[in-house]
Amino acid sequence: MLTDIEIAQAATPQPISAIAEKVGVPEQYLEQYGTTKAKVDYNLLRDQQHTPGKLVLVTAINPTAAGEGKTTTTVGLADALNRQGKNPVVALREPSLGPVFGIKGGAAGGGYAQVIPMEDINLHFTGDFHAIGAANNLLAALLDAHIHNGNQLNIDVRKITWKRVVDMNDRQLRNIVCGLGGKANGVPREDGFDITVASEVMAIFCLATSITDLKERLGRIVVGYTYDDQPVTAHDLHAEGAMAALLKDALKPNLVQTLEGTPAFVHGGPFANIAHGCNSIMATRMALALGDYAITEAGFGADLGAEKFLDIKCRLTGLKPDAVVVVATVRALKNHGGVAKDQLGEENLEALEAGLPNLLQHVENITNVYKLPCVVAINRFPTDTEAELKLVEDKCRELGVNVALSEVWAKGGEGGLALADEVVRLCEQGDEAGRSADTFEFAYDGELGLREKIEAIAKRVYRADGVDFEGKAAKELAKLEKLGFGDMPVCMAKTQYSFSDDQTKLGAPRGFRITVRDVKVSAGAGFVVALTGNIMTMPGLGKSPAAFKIDVDETGKITGLF
Amino acid sequence: MLTDIEIAQAATPQPISAIAEKVGVPEQYLEQYGTTKAKVDYNLLRDQQHTPGKLVLVTAINPTAAGEGKTTTTVGLADALNRQGKNPVVALREPSLGPVFGIKGGAAGGGYAQVIPMEDINLHFTGDFHAIGAANNLLAALLDAHIHNGNQLNIDVRKITWKRVVDMNDRQLRNIVCGLGGKANGVPREDGFDITVASEVMAIFCLATSITDLKERLGRIVVGYTYDDQPVTAHDLHAEGAMAALLKDALKPNLVQTLEGTPAFVHGGPFANIAHGCNSIMATRMALALGDYAITEAGFGADLGAEKFLDIKCRLTGLKPDAVVVVATVRALKNHGGVAKDQLGEENLEALEAGLPNLLQHVENITNVYKLPCVVAINRFPTDTEAELKLVEDKCRELGVNVALSEVWAKGGEGGLALADEVVRLCEQGDEAGRSADTFEFAYDGELGLREKIEAIAKRVYRADGVDFEGKAAKELAKLEKLGFGDMPVCMAKTQYSFSDDQTKLGAPRGFRITVRDVKVSAGAGFVVALTGNIMTMPGLGKSPAAFKIDVDETGKITGLF
Repeated sequence: MLTDIEIAQAATPQPISAIAEKVGVPEQYLEQYGTTKAKVDYNLLRDQQHTPGKLVLVTAINPTAAGEGKTTTTVGLADALNRQGKNPVVALREPSLGPVFGIKGGAAGGGYAQVIPMEDINLHFTGDFHAIGAANNLLAALLDAHIHNGNQLNIDVRKITWKRVVDMNDRQLRNIVCGLGGKANGVPREDGFDITVASEVMAIFCLATSITDLKERLGRIVVGYTYDDQPVTAHDLHAEGAMAALLKDALKPNLVQTLEGTPAFVHGGPFANIAHGCNSIMATRMALALGDYAITEAGFGADLGAEKFLDIKCRLTGLKPDAVVVVATVRALKNHGGVAKDQLGEENLEALEAGLPNLLQHVENITNVYKLPCVVAINRFPTDTEAELKLVEDKCRELGVNVALSEVWAKGGEGGLALADEVVRLCEQGDEAGRSADTFEFAYDGELGLREKIEAIAKRVYRADGVDFEGKAAKELAKLEKLGFGDMPVCMAKTQYSFSDDQTKLGAPRGFRITVRDVKVSAGAGFVVALTGNIMTMPGLGKSPAAFKIDVDETGKITGLF
Repeated sequence: MLTDIEIAQAATPQPISAIAEKVGVPEQYLEQYGTTKAKVDYNLLRDQQHTPGKLVLVTAINPTAAGEGKTTTTVGLADALNRQGKNPVVALREPSLGPVFGIKGGAAGGGYAQVIPMEDINLHFTGDFHAIGAANNLLAALLDAHIHNGNQLNIDVRKITWKRVVDMNDRQLRNIVCGLGGKANGVPREDGFDITVASEVMAIFCLATSITDLKERLGRIVVGYTYDDQPVTAHDLHAEGAMAALLKDALKPNLVQTLEGTPAFVHGGPFANIAHGCNSIMATRMALALGDYAITEAGFGADLGAEKFLDIKCRLTGLKPDAVVVVATVRALKNHGGVAKDQLGEENLEALEAGLPNLLQHVENITNVYKLPCVVAINRFPTDTEAELKLVEDKCRELGVNVALSEVWAKGGEGGLALADEVVRLCEQGDEAGRSADTFEFAYDGELGLREKIEAIAKRVYRADGVDFEGKAAKELAKLEKLGFGDMPVCMAKTQYSFSDDQTKLGAPRGFRITVRDVKVSAGAGFVVALTGNIMTMPGLGKSPAAFKIDVDETGKITGLF
């Protein structure tokens, strides 16, 4: 069995100029980064009229730590559509650099359903995340320089909410004291670093529709509060122009290709807990403009990624999906049915059936809450038995749930033809109950108060009995509503492993409540983050991190990256 | 009068593919980054035989804070050679991002002698510095993860010498305490950040001759010491493979062009105090291979930049310059002659003459210490009077010093023809005393002890009476020699404003001693750094930083960057 990187490196990519030509990107909008990567100027969308294609969202059940293969399915589905003579374009998130050196490995799909060049995509790619980090850290430097140089804005250093970032798994920087060393060296205060993808600049970057919109959003970032509790913004620090200058190239979507030569935009990658977890709106719009099918994904399971894609990204940008794919694996369903992680390779039909409610609840949410057509993609693993695969298919059909087996990991686009048939049918005709992009509804009304929005998500999507707001959260909610942030959608930061906020409650739990411990505003992105439990915004490296095995030779060939 | 950015943005650049073709870079070695920037694969140098061109080093007198125009002169000289039908190729350092937002503005030449696209070159360019920062910070994360996960190497956290970096002017990070927050969040210790260009990874990057050499150098980095004072290296932490993987694209020299279409490699940019201050050896070799004249520069004045270019870079790589240009301005010479900085615009022949010994000592060093042919370039400023320019020229000629007026800032290559004539003459025939690349000598013998090397530089180049080693420096020197680092060249970290270590001693001071306060080894770069005075390795932002004025519009046009 070849590894992902071996499969990727064995491929002969088409020149990226040929990929661009295929989807009609005029040469003057194409900026090549070598021969296999390019940026496409977003002004193409302003300068030319395009009939948008169909929008397909790929999401998943609550995953195990290994992930359910959303990216793999997204890529394979597009390759299958390509084989059927359609003109699909993929839109994916960029991987974060830091975790590549930890335990995670790459994040560009897997097996025979990958985007390439996978090494470049997993390392610096076209530099977008470094640009985002630089913009984030410029704002931090301007903030501390302001305080150091007289603090005319009267900022309370104990109430600074803006952190520095680095795209590295570096636990040592989670909590620091900075500004030490006497009068010439800043003002001592508590501080900390997040990983770059956790920066609000990343979320803003992914929601910005133009340079002007980007600057306005950056200007609205709240970096902290004054001694009398007034918000201090990036605009107050005159930061947004220089920050946007740092982001001007990054904002152009990156064009690459799948192993089968299907065009793919890989652009932006905010966290799916403290942020909204999907690629840039620029990339989604570009995929819609250039393809007849735009296939995109959202982070984690559908309770987090799809909920935010639909309630935040679609709300803020006017997008409406034509179909939703919910990816499930037999292994994860067995885990939801009670099987321990080290025994997921053994057939267990009973546990599999016991785990199905997790899948069915996600499907129900898509069809009954969001009123969208939905199909389940069973992402086949080598350890799955025929009986197990049949059980999932049969149960879905029994309940009137659309389902298709996906074998794209092993077979590429050829393994996704059945799924592609279902997706095309749903996009063209809607589902049996008449659901389509036109019937799409949000899970909550934007007019509701912040508490009511959180409760709506908890009850309708998670099926919680209710929400408890801890003292700090209640106080902060009141403050944010008073400051005028009450009309924003909410972004739930919750474990991805369960519908609940307790990662041990697998399946489709009932009789639980959600506890909101704290809230914070991402005023530039345009949402209020509700934090349940401890959300890790800076990972660490273990005793034998993946970095130990990564190497490069004189030809520039990377090894040891999975 | 147009600003630098206005002049740069008014230019119509040639496609970078045409520039590459002009100097014979085969298409398969060219990786375009958009249409005006490209990387050239260094394997070109291995795969093809080239007759190396002449090597011209541009250096300067001790500068004022504004700089003497070395980059401007380098670019203009190349453009002049181009006008004369030669095939010159420029090799320059990449500017650091952080200072662009402080007070410094751009660093891509000035007036009509610039490399373009200057905005990109001054901002992220092709991402090299971010890659260097990531490699630096990966090593830091691996180091702290090692300590956190059991510290099998027995590292004394009080003796860690490896710092994290960020490419930002951020004084708040100069001195920090990290690893706070309890057992899960690292090990508390004192720490600090440098700006990226101060990283030893930058120095290594600029001296590496291949991926293999890069990895060996990275592996030799000393990150700290054990409780029993043994050095701990990056290799001990298994870091060099992953670090090199992060640098594999960065290591390819960046090709751009001057305003007049002369090819220019802009690649690498180590500090000229704690490091050796010149562009990458890859870029210098590429310029020599592709051009008949390779025009390069070294940081700060000739006492720092040229000394290190000659005693470190040439020693470690076997390069030999064919001619040296010493750039001087009337303004700076008047400053050396005692005129205050706010009065440099007024004619003052007496002060100008009083300041000349600074220039003459630099020339003497080049010709009598290093035994190389030398020409003075008077970089004309709009405030210079004819009488002042004549005085400098006359005095030089009187003393047998080659001299040419350079008006490249105002006139581009046309203003550098006289200088080009002198440079060609020196390169082709050597100077009147028979000096040429063949007569080149180092300022000190590599076999000397570390103290003796430092003393040789201080006495022969600075004209100090001697060197005082403070207790810490003496102890550290003994330790480094015991550890086997005694055969390395030394890298002096000293103020750039004076030959001495006291920035107020202008002109050609006598009767002073140099005080070495501390020394450290850059084992991967291959030199021992001797620190005199406080060397700033992390700048800060002032009350009204340049960032306030930088902006970008929907077309991606940057404004406010000078």
